[in-house]
Amino acid sequence: MKPPVKIAVTGAGGAIGYALLFRIAAGDMLGPEQPVILHLLEIDAARKSVEATIMELDDCAFPLLHGCRAFFNPLEGFADVNYALLVGARPRGRGMERKDLLHVNGEIFSVQGRALNEAAARDVRVAVIGNPANTNALIALRNAPDLAPSQFSCMLRLDHNRATTMVAQRAGCMIADVRCMTVWGNHSSTQFPDLSHCTVRGKPALDIVGREWFEDEFIAAVQQRGAKVIEARGASSAASAANAAIDHLRTWVSGTPENDWTSMGVFAEDNAYGVEPGTVFSYPVTTKGGEWRIVEGLDLDGFAQDKIATTARELREEQAAVAASLP
Amino acid sequence: MKPPVKIAVTGAGGAIGYALLFRIAAGDMLGPEQPVILHLLEIDAARKSVEATIMELDDCAFPLLHGCRAFFNPLEGFADVNYALLVGARPRGRGMERKDLLHVNGEIFSVQGRALNEAAARDVRVAVIGNPANTNALIALRNAPDLAPSQFSCMLRLDHNRATTMVAQRAGCMIADVRCMTVWGNHSSTQFPDLSHCTVRGKPALDIVGREWFEDEFIAAVQQRGAKVIEARGASSAASAANAAIDHLRTWVSGTPENDWTSMGVFAEDNAYGVEPGTVFSYPVTTKGGEWRIVEGLDLDGFAQDKIATTARELREEQAAVAASLP
Repeated sequence: MKPPVKIAVTGAGGAIGYALLFRIAAGDMLGPEQPVILHLLEIDAARKSVEATIMELDDCAFPLLHGCRAFFNPLEGFADVNYALLVGARPRGRGMERKDLLHVNGEIFSVQGRALNEAAARDVRVAVIGNPANTNALIALRNAPDLAPSQFSCMLRLDHNRATTMVAQRAGCMIADVRCMTVWGNHSSTQFPDLSHCTVRGKPALDIVGREWFEDEFIAAVQQRGAKVIEARGASSAASAANAAIDHLRTWVSGTPENDWTSMGVFAEDNAYGVEPGTVFSYPVTTKGGEWRIVEGLDLDGFAQDKIATTARELREEQAAVAASLP
Repeated sequence: MKPPVKIAVTGAGGAIGYALLFRIAAGDMLGPEQPVILHLLEIDAARKSVEATIMELDDCAFPLLHGCRAFFNPLEGFADVNYALLVGARPRGRGMERKDLLHVNGEIFSVQGRALNEAAARDVRVAVIGNPANTNALIALRNAPDLAPSQFSCMLRLDHNRATTMVAQRAGCMIADVRCMTVWGNHSSTQFPDLSHCTVRGKPALDIVGREWFEDEFIAAVQQRGAKVIEARGASSAASAANAAIDHLRTWVSGTPENDWTSMGVFAEDNAYGVEPGTVFSYPVTTKGGEWRIVEGLDLDGFAQDKIATTARELREEQAAVAASLP
């Protein structure tokens, strides 16, 4: 059996953490041959919840779970970790302005970026799930100068998965029949779920679902799906967000299939698809062994270019708002 | 790819259901080659919750999930199902007497037994998770005369897993080093977690953990673990119970390993280990392809025989209390 890898999960005492940790320990993320040691990071106020979660992890007798500990200090919690899933973030409270939200999370992710820089394994892969995920990832990577920006990413996979199901349901096909889905930009309501290159059983998806449905229904449905789930559940997505985090990390490590790609928020050094570098932006990417690569040379029409410009603009505004957290 | 199997989960809108459904859809229970169709059964009061769960299942784009629907009527929900996980049960409310609890659940599980008898696939496997699990399973199978009693079982796997971890932690070994654990009897505080035949790295566990620890600490710790988790979480075990349900079903279908067994509540036709037939009692069992077989010929000392007699007595009392639900 392989030697265990260390995985830190922040916000481990929350609802996404609860839906995530047991699946990681069961092997859903890194496969049935990879033992794991879990570092559950939390703030002190969530101590009771995280300790109860550890009791239940123990009670599962997972053969792959070679260790499991709670941490309340990022420097200790990130020590020697090979993977970090940054789930914990400050949610927007009532009456809280967007500016305040960005500022509070700026603090959290600066501290975590510096701790990762200092303590994590040099090959660490960091996935940011906590919102605003793109900008939080940017803050973390800018505070970790000794790690490569390519070791950081943020999760758009929940949007990507939602978009995939919507197309499959519209086309009356299986999930596996839908390929080359892309969600561009910010994990926010400006994201652009794009069917320009998506295929259904190898044929252009737009020919099957219709351009009108794509423009008039699909885009808004994907953008607003999170709000719909909150309305139905009375709480944010938890199990589906945790599942997307697992998909995101698994795909990053084990690779995208031939003739397919995924959507991932990454820090591009170049001017890919007209997006000014400097933000963490979601692109179509292929992955292999923990490395990602933006899919190059896709044709985009004016409609798509406009949508991409809109979400890029929003990300630059977010970036400006957290300038104090960007060394 | 194999044709999909249908799986009903009752109490699908509850906390265990929420922890269970996504793992089934991810392939954790029946493996990565087995597509599934989920039937989410609930009472009408939980309609909103179960519908929100379906939205999130959709949002996961699970390639193995070939269908997913909510049902509020057991006859429809159990139609043609190959597996039924009976999670939903009436929990004990404040001021509710044990007798009332048994009676209310007697109603629920009679109805479900009759519906399974009438509507389920003829090869259905039914696992009862909702408490009092043993007696609920007995009621269900007695109300399903056209199905074999061996198609029903109840879950002791959570206790079994808890006991395994406690031994591994005491012995300082890996989970996989602990074999031939047995939890006998009722999934209640009279259960008997037994180390008589348990091994650690092939050696008698009792030689390693000590008879005193076994008798004075271990048994009570396993029996009372559920209460400890409730105290820590402020709610019953959910993810660990769901995990045990997955382990229970997976082991039942895919089989116990060589030189090992599991613990499962089953309806024995014979007088196995001095337990009067007629109840659903947990024994050490080996499994293969959905069939179980009680491990025969184990030597039991007086201490173990007494403990087994105690939990058997409790089950006969429960059985007497629900006589009205046992045709």
